[in-house]
Amino acid sequence: MSHDLSDRALPFPLARIGIIGGGQLGRMMVRKATQLGFSAIVLDPTPNSPAGQVAGHQIVGDFFDPAKLRELAELSNVTTFDIESIDSKALEALVADGFSILPSPQLLASIQNKLTQKQMLADKGIATGRFVGLDQPTPAALAEFGYPLVQKAQRGGYDGRGVEIFHDDGDPDRILPVPSLLEEYVDCDKELAVMVARGLDGVTRAYPVVEMVFDPAANILDQLVAPARIDEAQTQAARALAVETIEAIDGVGVFGVELFLAKDGRLLVNEIAPRTHNSGHYTIEACVTDQFEQQIRAITGLPLGSTEQIQPAVMINLLGEPGYSGRTIVEGLDEALAVEGAAVHIYGKAESQPGRKMGHVTVVDHSIEAAGAKAQRIRQVLRIRGEHPL
Amino acid sequence: MSHDLSDRALPFPLARIGIIGGGQLGRMMVRKATQLGFSAIVLDPTPNSPAGQVAGHQIVGDFFDPAKLRELAELSNVTTFDIESIDSKALEALVADGFSILPSPQLLASIQNKLTQKQMLADKGIATGRFVGLDQPTPAALAEFGYPLVQKAQRGGYDGRGVEIFHDDGDPDRILPVPSLLEEYVDCDKELAVMVARGLDGVTRAYPVVEMVFDPAANILDQLVAPARIDEAQTQAARALAVETIEAIDGVGVFGVELFLAKDGRLLVNEIAPRTHNSGHYTIEACVTDQFEQQIRAITGLPLGSTEQIQPAVMINLLGEPGYSGRTIVEGLDEALAVEGAAVHIYGKAESQPGRKMGHVTVVDHSIEAAGAKAQRIRQVLRIRGEHPL
Repeated sequence: MSHDLSDRALPFPLARIGIIGGGQLGRMMVRKATQLGFSAIVLDPTPNSPAGQVAGHQIVGDFFDPAKLRELAELSNVTTFDIESIDSKALEALVADGFSILPSPQLLASIQNKLTQKQMLADKGIATGRFVGLDQPTPAALAEFGYPLVQKAQRGGYDGRGVEIFHDDGDPDRILPVPSLLEEYVDCDKELAVMVARGLDGVTRAYPVVEMVFDPAANILDQLVAPARIDEAQTQAARALAVETIEAIDGVGVFGVELFLAKDGRLLVNEIAPRTHNSGHYTIEACVTDQFEQQIRAITGLPLGSTEQIQPAVMINLLGEPGYSGRTIVEGLDEALAVEGAAVHIYGKAESQPGRKMGHVTVVDHSIEAAGAKAQRIRQVLRIRGEHPL
Repeated sequence: MSHDLSDRALPFPLARIGIIGGGQLGRMMVRKATQLGFSAIVLDPTPNSPAGQVAGHQIVGDFFDPAKLRELAELSNVTTFDIESIDSKALEALVADGFSILPSPQLLASIQNKLTQKQMLADKGIATGRFVGLDQPTPAALAEFGYPLVQKAQRGGYDGRGVEIFHDDGDPDRILPVPSLLEEYVDCDKELAVMVARGLDGVTRAYPVVEMVFDPAANILDQLVAPARIDEAQTQAARALAVETIEAIDGVGVFGVELFLAKDGRLLVNEIAPRTHNSGHYTIEACVTDQFEQQIRAITGLPLGSTEQIQPAVMINLLGEPGYSGRTIVEGLDEALAVEGAAVHIYGKAESQPGRKMGHVTVVDHSIEAAGAKAQRIRQVLRIRGEHPL
C-alpha cells in the first residue's frame, strides 16, 4: 500500500498518484505527475474524463462511494483531489488505516462547510469579514445581521451557485432555505487571490498576488490579471496574509486563498480552496514552477519549486456558449492561435453546456495591458459550444 | 479518414493525431496535442510506451509493418512521427491513397539515407561539407577522399552509432562495411542547432540558435546551451541558413538543423532531423511556444506560435547509468528539484540500459552561466539506473 516516499532511491514508477476528480485541474496535474516520472490514476463518475484521458487509468465511480475511494487509495502511494465535494469522512477513515491522503481529509472537512471554514479562520485570528451561522435563515435573521450581506449555503456551493447577495432587504423568495452562513457584504476595491504551496516539511511558497476581474452582470470571472495592479505594500500584505492563513491551518498541498481588498482599506480572507485553482492557471506559462507541479511536489515530499513569475499574464476562461448543448465544437482556434503569446487549453470534455468550463487561455506578453488586449481579442474569436441549439 | 482541417468549426475531438514512434518526443508531443483539444494515438512496438502512456491509445506494432501503419493512418486525421527509422515507402503509398502524413514521406525518405540527404542539400545550394558516396568503402577509397574524414553509414545510424572518424589513416578494422557517405572532417569552433517550424501555408519560424557541447571522450552531448554563445552576425547567419534549408526542401512540420561553425569561419549544415529534436527540449520552459506544440500546429494547419526565448536555458540529458540494467530506478530527484529553475522530465521508460535516454533536465535562469552551473550540480545528484548491476 502506501510506502515511504522519503526514500532517496525510488523504484519506477516512482509512485502512483491517485486523484479524486477527473476534471481540468486533475488533467493538468496528471501532465506534471507524468513529467516527473510518476504515474497517475483518476477516480471520476464520467468515463474518459478529462484527467482520465491523459492518465491512461481511471476508476469510474462516485466521489461519495467509500468502496471506490478505498480502491483508489489502495492503488496509489499518495492520494489527492481536484474537487472539494467528496466524501471527506471516508477519506478520514482511510487515513486512519494508514493511507497517505493530502491535503488532509480533516482539513478538507473543515473547508467543505463554509461556516466551519470561516470559524476555523476566525479561531486562528485570520482577518475575515463579520459572519454568523444560521440553521434556518429567515428575513428577521437577515435583518438582525444587517444589510448589505451575503448568504452562502454552508454546503455544496460552487461557481456562484449557493450564494445570494442582499443589499437592503431580505426578499423571502431569494433566501436559500438551507443551513447558511451570513457574511457582511464587503465593498471591494479589488478581489485578489494568492496560490500558496506548502510541503510536508512545512516550507511555504506563495505565488504572486493576482486580480480577479468579474463581469458585474453575469457574476463570472472576466479576466485573471497576474500580477495584480496594486501597490507594493498591498502586494506584500496580501502574500503575507495568504501564507499566514495556510500556515495557521497547517495545510499541505496547494491552496487558493481568495482575498478582498475592501474600499475601506481592509484586507480580508474570503475563502480557501484546498486544491489547485482557476486563479493559478496562469502559472503554467508565466511562472518557473506551476501550481500543478507544485501540488505533485508537495504531496510526494519533494522540494517545492520557484514561484517566481517571469512574464505578465492575463487568463480568460472558455465557457460553453449559451444556447447550445451536446458534442463539443470549437470555433476560431486558428484565429486565437494567431495571437502571439496565447496558450490555449481545451479540456477534452465531450459535451458542452452553457456556462460549463470548457477551457482557458493564458496570454503572456511584456505588459499586463498588452496581454489583456490580446485576451479580449481571443474572447471575441474563440468559442466553444455544443453541437445542438437549445 | 482524413478530413478538411481548414474548417473553422471543428468537431470534438478536433482531430486525432497519429504518431509513429512512442518515445519521449512523441510523449511530449501528445501532451501538447491534448492541451489543444486534439486526441492522439501512438504506434510503437513496446506496449505502454512513453507516448502511449499519456495518449491513452496505442497500437502495438512495428514501424516497418505496412498494415499497422495503415491502421494508424485510418484512425487519424493527420499522422506524423517522432523517429526517422520507419517504412517511408509504406507511408508514400498511404499518401497516394489520400491520407495526410506530415512531414512528407518522400522528404523523409530523402533524409533517411544520409547520402541522398546530403545530395539534396547540395542540389539546393545549401552550404555543407565536401562529401562522396561509396557502396563498398575501402582503405583506398578513404585515402583518395583525403583525411581527416568522417564515414557514416547511409542508413540506420543514430546517436553516434554508424559513424567513424578517421584522422590520418583508414584502419580497415574500423571501416564500416556498409554503403556509406564520406564527409570532410570539419574542425569545429562550435556545433550549433536551430529548430525550424514550417506550416502548411509555407510560413517559417526559426527558434534561437543553440550550442551543443559534447563530451569529447564519450562523444555524447554534455550540455545544450540556449542561446548559443556566438556573436550577432553568426546568430543571424545560422538562423538564415537553417530557414533557407527547410524552405529549400519544402518541409512542413518541425525540423532540427544541425550546423557546424568551422574554425575557418565556414557555417555548414551537418544534418537535418525531420522531427522534433533533443536540441529543442529547452523550448518547453524557455520559449513562448515550444517545439512540440509547434509540430501539432504545423501539421494541423494552425498558425505557428512565437519562437521567442524568454529566459536563458541549459539542458542536460539523463542517460541510463553504465553498469546497470532492468527496472528503472531514479536517485536524487529530491536534490535535483531543490535547485531553483530546474525542470525535470522523466520519460517513463520501464527499463534502464547504459546510455539510454531516460530523461532530461532544463534549467532556466537569468544567465547561461548560472543555468549551466546548476545543470552541472544536477548531473552530480540525479541518476537513473537499472535495478540490477550488469
